[in-house]
Amino acid sequence: MRCLVPVAVNSPKSRLAPVLSLNERQTFAHAMLADVLSTLTTAGYHPTVLATAPVDDDRIANHATVEVDDRPLSAALNAQLAGGKPTLVVMADLPLVKPQDITELAESDADVTIAPGLGGGTNALAIREPSFRVDYHGASYLDHCRAADNLGATVETVDSRRLATDIDEPADLAELLIHGDGAAHEWLTGAGFELDTTDGRVGISRR
Amino acid sequence: MRCLVPVAVNSPKSRLAPVLSLNERQTFAHAMLADVLSTLTTAGYHPTVLATAPVDDDRIANHATVEVDDRPLSAALNAQLAGGKPTLVVMADLPLVKPQDITELAESDADVTIAPGLGGGTNALAIREPSFRVDYHGASYLDHCRAADNLGATVETVDSRRLATDIDEPADLAELLIHGDGAAHEWLTGAGFELDTTDGRVGISRR
Repeated sequence: MRCLVPVAVNSPKSRLAPVLSLNERQTFAHAMLADVLSTLTTAGYHPTVLATAPVDDDRIANHATVEVDDRPLSAALNAQLAGGKPTLVVMADLPLVKPQDITELAESDADVTIAPGLGGGTNALAIREPSFRVDYHGASYLDHCRAADNLGATVETVDSRRLATDIDEPADLAELLIHGDGAAHEWLTGAGFELDTTDGRVGISRR
Repeated sequence: MRCLVPVAVNSPKSRLAPVLSLNERQTFAHAMLADVLSTLTTAGYHPTVLATAPVDDDRIANHATVEVDDRPLSAALNAQLAGGKPTLVVMADLPLVKPQDITELAESDADVTIAPGLGGGTNALAIREPSFRVDYHGASYLDHCRAADNLGATVETVDSRRLATDIDEPADLAELLIHGDGAAHEWLTGAGFELDTTDGRVGISRR
């Protein structure tokens, strides 16, 4: 199964701006992407990074083919899906994902298998229906379910906390500190972030 | 395996106060508990509700034994665990959980199997180590891992989005609107809540 990882190179992780500078967000986004590519490679895939601009990072070039397409996410992916080949689409901000999560997703029998993100997004897709197209606006999980239904395709929803945890906002960093063990986790702890439970709930603080 | 569901009867879901009145929170908390009990029953368990005060609701009395213990959560649970019997502990605010999630948790071979909540909490436990005790303060997931390690017990972490999604805050209601199908989902939609994607991200609004 072909495997695509879309990446917005020039506007990385803007919702982390309250806690990370632009430079830091770029480095952190690359570390998360490196984790995802390493996971996909271990699961037996050779991923293609579908990037909005060239990516200059050995950790990425060593684990993937990089293809540049500067169109918005859905348009770039749908151009790829137009070929009709079975395709795995995995977002680049899922540093908790493990190889077995990818295998479970890819081995589903459904025509379209969806790993929802928290908040109604779509974090990963295994697409076997040649006519299926993506649309990442708003509550895309429900939209993707409906789109598959409308094609008469079978749909399955994966129940994985790790696939559901995309790292978008400062609060998400706590999940990475608690459960992570790869390059992104290492970068984050090296940058001085740690769990903060002083008010009885779990947050993050920076040394 | 014995199955306990702890419930704080008199202070239900205080973090939902910005969107629900005290009366509504009580009704909603009971609906979530009814969903959890129905799931546990379908999975083959006869749950005991460990309540801080008597519970007057047929949906609950019909699916569980109710035992009253007015001590704080950890103390009440540890009094039960003192008997050393293998025990499943499932929180009452997990209306997305399905019977297969409970089966997976309970059938784990580890001495202590943990289903972490988002934010570092502990949403469910399967305890086979007689000396294990709970402590729900702060980032209890990490504390429970350490406590099991300190006893020389084997630990497994369950990867389930549904078990990870405890409904604590207004933002969590979106998860229930998107993925739910039981009594709590029905109450929430009946109370006028719906998804709101007007600002491009997924929130909730009330009619």
